[in-house]
Amino acid sequence: METGNFLFYFFIIFTSAKILGAISIRLKMPAIIGELAAGVLLGNYVLGIINTSNHVLMSFAEIGVIFLMFYVGLEIRVKDLFAVGRTAILVGILGVIFPLLMGIGSMLLLGHEIIESLFVATAILATSVGISVKVLKDLGLIKHKVAYIVLGAAVLDDIFALIILALVKGLARGKFQAAEFVLLIMESLVFIGFLTLWGPKLARRTRKWVERINIPEGPFVLSIILCLGLAELADIIGLAAIIGAFMAGVVIDELAGVYDLENKVKYVNEFLLPFFFVMMGAHLDPGAFLKPNLLFLTLLVTAIAVLSKMVGSVLACWKENWKTRIQIGVCMVPRGEVGIIVGMVGLSLHTITKDMYTVVLGMSLLTTLITPPLILLSFKKKRRKASSPGKTE
Amino acid sequence: METGNFLFYFFIIFTSAKILGAISIRLKMPAIIGELAAGVLLGNYVLGIINTSNHVLMSFAEIGVIFLMFYVGLEIRVKDLFAVGRTAILVGILGVIFPLLMGIGSMLLLGHEIIESLFVATAILATSVGISVKVLKDLGLIKHKVAYIVLGAAVLDDIFALIILALVKGLARGKFQAAEFVLLIMESLVFIGFLTLWGPKLARRTRKWVERINIPEGPFVLSIILCLGLAELADIIGLAAIIGAFMAGVVIDELAGVYDLENKVKYVNEFLLPFFFVMMGAHLDPGAFLKPNLLFLTLLVTAIAVLSKMVGSVLACWKENWKTRIQIGVCMVPRGEVGIIVGMVGLSLHTITKDMYTVVLGMSLLTTLITPPLILLSFKKKRRKASSPGKTE
Repeated sequence: METGNFLFYFFIIFTSAKILGAISIRLKMPAIIGELAAGVLLGNYVLGIINTSNHVLMSFAEIGVIFLMFYVGLEIRVKDLFAVGRTAILVGILGVIFPLLMGIGSMLLLGHEIIESLFVATAILATSVGISVKVLKDLGLIKHKVAYIVLGAAVLDDIFALIILALVKGLARGKFQAAEFVLLIMESLVFIGFLTLWGPKLARRTRKWVERINIPEGPFVLSIILCLGLAELADIIGLAAIIGAFMAGVVIDELAGVYDLENKVKYVNEFLLPFFFVMMGAHLDPGAFLKPNLLFLTLLVTAIAVLSKMVGSVLACWKENWKTRIQIGVCMVPRGEVGIIVGMVGLSLHTITKDMYTVVLGMSLLTTLITPPLILLSFKKKRRKASSPGKTE
Repeated sequence: METGNFLFYFFIIFTSAKILGAISIRLKMPAIIGELAAGVLLGNYVLGIINTSNHVLMSFAEIGVIFLMFYVGLEIRVKDLFAVGRTAILVGILGVIFPLLMGIGSMLLLGHEIIESLFVATAILATSVGISVKVLKDLGLIKHKVAYIVLGAAVLDDIFALIILALVKGLARGKFQAAEFVLLIMESLVFIGFLTLWGPKLARRTRKWVERINIPEGPFVLSIILCLGLAELADIIGLAAIIGAFMAGVVIDELAGVYDLENKVKYVNEFLLPFFFVMMGAHLDPGAFLKPNLLFLTLLVTAIAVLSKMVGSVLACWKENWKTRIQIGVCMVPRGEVGIIVGMVGLSLHTITKDMYTVVLGMSLLTTLITPPLILLSFKKKRRKASSPGKTE
């Protein structure tokens, strides 16, 4: 069995992520900033030590974010999700409509073709909730109402984005397959609907069976099987794998308390997660920003992505106070893997240029990088208002 | 980021390993048998679902066995290792000399060339202690004297085997580099000597510093950095990575208790380890045994590997009673990654044939497959001898 090769990368990635993470914390910033920075430093374009075309490292990154979403799901209760359901749905819908319209509009104004404009707009639709969730967790705010609304909305906008991608892909190929499109919508509805409505009940019923199973650490092992299985199923349907992993966590949340699953999954997570953040950072080419036109386009698309999502979110939760509305908007800002997937699909269909792909990548990373400090800022406790609930610092 | 592809393999590997493992347990066999069988079934030659040339899966397997050895190291105390030191060293030395002589002798008798005979003999030198250790752990015997002797001896015979490989490699290339050879010996001695003598003291001294570090789960994170770092260092020196990981665990054993590291590393292990056993199993081509001459050679080499190691071990621990001597001998039987590495080196230097490589692989896997039942048998409590210490059933 060959060693060495990948072991060196593992050591470098894990260690530098943790060192720069510790420095971030010392500078009163969330650790992720440091971990992303470690990725930018080690990545393709700066030191060139790690490369995003390395399948082994990318798989570890992928499994890292899957475990993160599973872990987050374990802390979320379906009934609490239902409690904020209406707001979350509204944030999800308006948080997709605004970026879509503003994205297409501004791209067309800049003189891009309609199909390229459509792809760019689709790439800025879906929130990559991992980053926001990690920051909220670190702040002890994962059970805060904002976290619930953001999680619900992010699951929805991922679904919307992937449905729209299916539509745009059909248009790009010159043929629109209505059947395929309807199938995706149906499958998504059934998947999410079934899991939220009957999942927890089914999980509760299996408890007796789980107790009798004779493998060591049975509940932990079964929960991982469920996580990997639903992630794979979500992927097969055409949704993002992380949605499946998140739903797996949500479904077994009640049992998780009984078997202390959170504390067990936590350490798998601690080991795997740095690979995700580092590999995300490694995609960034700081040199691309030396080309003025590319820099301008990236900043513009990023600004549209941030503004449109914030406007949509803030309008959607009009029932909340302004502070909460801003907090929700800020948490919805980061774009990640879905945006990158859209970019890659566009690139492979030759409907967007390589430069435009760099722009999409830059937008994903910029929105990811600016979110943690923005969240910190939006949750900053005012000295005189010490009565707000939950730990906020 | 591409998903799907590897996620499917993850689900299949983890799930089938656990299902066949549970069936093994029900049949009163250790779970590993089932996990290895899952690998044979899924592997290159039977269902062909997974392939050992898949870098992602092999890397997960490799990191799985690294975490196993780290976890085992965490349970081992240096001073207990010293207490059985003399016996372990003798088992290590005789357990290498006998396989080497018997291996070369029988291959020469069968009419093979001297250099090929040397390679085959080298491939049967090193015990792959992972399997034995897992069985002993499952039996609650990891703190038994036998486990300590076997672990100490296995670390030593890995070192001997790798030194002999360096020698044989030089001969195969037609030039023997004395300087390189001496360097490897010196490096190995310094690495192991330094870590066993000063490692624990150094670790104790860092405790104040560890307490002050401001990253979440600091001790856990630092222990993983140490594990990956020493594994990589051992690999750079030319030793096996698992020796480095094991030594990392041994060095911080005392601190491990303070920070409950065992219970944290355990779950990382639970997730990653099945990949190791499944990928080990996947190497096996049951069809190869349909060729009578290959089957004969594999069985012969396996018999020599088992007998020579057992004779060496049993002679080495002449101070112990017969039961203990047999137990130690049995635990030293499995050959694994080092044997496969030797085979691969031989193949790449064109000094062994592809058939001979299959034989070496078959030997590695057969010794691995027969060990768990043999260990169970050797530790079986006699009805009238209920006074023996430790849980044995």
